[in-house]
Amino acid sequence: MALPPERPPIDTDAVVIGAGPVGLFQVFQLGLQDLRTHLIDALPYAGGQCAELYPDKPIYDIPGLPVVTGQELTERLQRQIQPFATPVHLGLQVTGLQRQPDGRWLLTAGQSQAEPTCWLSRVVVIAAGVGAFMPRRATLKALEAFEGSQVLYHHHAMTPAARNPQRHRVVMGGDEAAVELALELALELAGAQALERGALQPADAPPVVLLHRTDKLSLGASLQAAWQAALDAGRVRLVVGQPVGLQTAPESGDSPNPTPTLTALELATPNGTTQWLPTDVLLPRLGLSPKLGPVAEWGLAMERKHLVVDTAGFATSEPGIFAVGDVNTYPGKKKLIVCGFHEATLAAYAAAALLRPNEREMLQYTTTSPRLQQLLGVLPAGKEEPAAQSGP
Amino acid sequence: MALPPERPPIDTDAVVIGAGPVGLFQVFQLGLQDLRTHLIDALPYAGGQCAELYPDKPIYDIPGLPVVTGQELTERLQRQIQPFATPVHLGLQVTGLQRQPDGRWLLTAGQSQAEPTCWLSRVVVIAAGVGAFMPRRATLKALEAFEGSQVLYHHHAMTPAARNPQRHRVVMGGDEAAVELALELALELAGAQALERGALQPADAPPVVLLHRTDKLSLGASLQAAWQAALDAGRVRLVVGQPVGLQTAPESGDSPNPTPTLTALELATPNGTTQWLPTDVLLPRLGLSPKLGPVAEWGLAMERKHLVVDTAGFATSEPGIFAVGDVNTYPGKKKLIVCGFHEATLAAYAAAALLRPNEREMLQYTTTSPRLQQLLGVLPAGKEEPAAQSGP
Repeated sequence: MALPPERPPIDTDAVVIGAGPVGLFQVFQLGLQDLRTHLIDALPYAGGQCAELYPDKPIYDIPGLPVVTGQELTERLQRQIQPFATPVHLGLQVTGLQRQPDGRWLLTAGQSQAEPTCWLSRVVVIAAGVGAFMPRRATLKALEAFEGSQVLYHHHAMTPAARNPQRHRVVMGGDEAAVELALELALELAGAQALERGALQPADAPPVVLLHRTDKLSLGASLQAAWQAALDAGRVRLVVGQPVGLQTAPESGDSPNPTPTLTALELATPNGTTQWLPTDVLLPRLGLSPKLGPVAEWGLAMERKHLVVDTAGFATSEPGIFAVGDVNTYPGKKKLIVCGFHEATLAAYAAAALLRPNEREMLQYTTTSPRLQQLLGVLPAGKEEPAAQSGP
Repeated sequence: MALPPERPPIDTDAVVIGAGPVGLFQVFQLGLQDLRTHLIDALPYAGGQCAELYPDKPIYDIPGLPVVTGQELTERLQRQIQPFATPVHLGLQVTGLQRQPDGRWLLTAGQSQAEPTCWLSRVVVIAAGVGAFMPRRATLKALEAFEGSQVLYHHHAMTPAARNPQRHRVVMGGDEAAVELALELALELAGAQALERGALQPADAPPVVLLHRTDKLSLGASLQAAWQAALDAGRVRLVVGQPVGLQTAPESGDSPNPTPTLTALELATPNGTTQWLPTDVLLPRLGLSPKLGPVAEWGLAMERKHLVVDTAGFATSEPGIFAVGDVNTYPGKKKLIVCGFHEATLAAYAAAALLRPNEREMLQYTTTSPRLQQLLGVLPAGKEEPAAQSGP
């Protein structure tokens, strides 16, 4: 397959890495500084740890919000940044960061197998929290060679084979996300049957396999019912075991380096035997775990896996690179959202000072500044606020 | 009048000076640290600058609150600190701070003429913003001798004479607060008339005088209508002029140091003449202006009228004294509420470390910590949180 032509890098003032609450508020503060900003996150949705670890759990220590869930806080912050119409790039993991001769940074992010997106920016704010939430890997090393083609983690695009009901599709995992995916694939089968009635009998298509290490699934009542119904209809099947080996077939065709094709998994079962499971597509859904990833390899000063910053503007050891939220460290640091909000605020001022070195810094208040109110869209552009009623 | 017996100082872990948004959140964070806290403010209500300068103006840069008024933010923070049932002392200005031999601080606060309240506390957090909001003084120096007795500023208690419709009562000022006070005093007269019908004729009681430097009042429509009705009924009177002198009568009685009694004000009028205004009680309502006051005299390290703090715990130069919000300064400081919230958070951790030097500091999250949830009253005391549903 020929690659599409390489896209030129996106030119911008600032890139924020991480769309958790602190990254979202960073976008807000950069917006108040009138800086063009792009936001990137490895997850396919905003919210970071709030969305991934505790979307429905109440948080009690956000100032002015006596009780708020992670999900609601995320939504509130997304509403707050709406005036700035910031481009948001989700599902992309940052892979590279290189200083350019003109002092700007070339930032690269992408999905495996897809062409990366690049930005050229004077300012990069790392709000990466505990790192990018990456899927937990299946332990069988030999599966790595098939990632993105026959082994699809949650950040990979679905392939035609994964959507093809005639293929042997195996979802690996036992939590609700795994079961939901298995059901989704099985229900697509049902949809295809409805469309091509008669042409495709249920008996023709193998059930979608849920491969789990035990026969215990932890499901809510409604999902349990849907799962049981799909089991009874023969659309899904539970297989208990863990992959310990695999079978491949050489790729047909005359290509000089034929890529082997995964055809089956060898499973260790609880009773000590092994068995073969025909597998065309494996979809591991073993949960997500955070990985600091390439951020740790950019040569920035670190202490115990955290980026060292100054507390005046939350700059790292490299000019133009800032770090806010759980990813940074400084004397007195506490990993709290309320602290990240402050850090993002001062980082935005420091970023603006870097980009506009000749402008005298002015502290303006959203309550009184017509300029900030224009940026926020609450005052029409070019119009001055009516003078407040004068006192005695 | 004999003074009541002196009260012993209140023993507590921490005192917060200033009930603005940052002082309120400071109370919250000290509460999460399980420290007994008292809160003091010079204004008769919580909210600080938010309440005094812009109660109805929208603020746009509080994280998670896309639009909030100063008044609403104050109410939200008051709701947030409710679980801690913190004693709040309003209308008291802090006057003294002295280190005791045991390392604690003796803090004194009071109203003029009233017995001061005292606290003994290891920790004092100054969240005084731009200072205590003190009434703007009438410029005539000679009036100072009568403050608290015949000259009553907004922090003084009303005297019987101020409530007596037979006395010559003069409210000084031209804004809504001044007009509202004049009307309140005139309406009390109406109430007294209704009670003692016949015993007190309107003609017997002089109208309440509003003394203002011009004949222009800046009033909203409904207040304007009420003012006009009271004018028409002869219950209030507008006098234009500025006090330049006063007349007194020696106090009757055989006291060795007789205190003179204020009887009239000499006014300079706009046409260049002077006139005498009979005055038993003068109530200046010339607005409030912030004064840092005694905080500037406590020997704490300062830079350009701000308290110098470290950014690890927002400690001042004196052990046990912290400063948060607009009153402090450090490299990168921005006078923003969101920054004060962070400062209050780290100050609470530093205060707890000072009070519990042998306890290992633990970062706990309100989302997951049963101990914090017990302090917040969302989990019954002594009960553990049910274990979260375990993953796959």
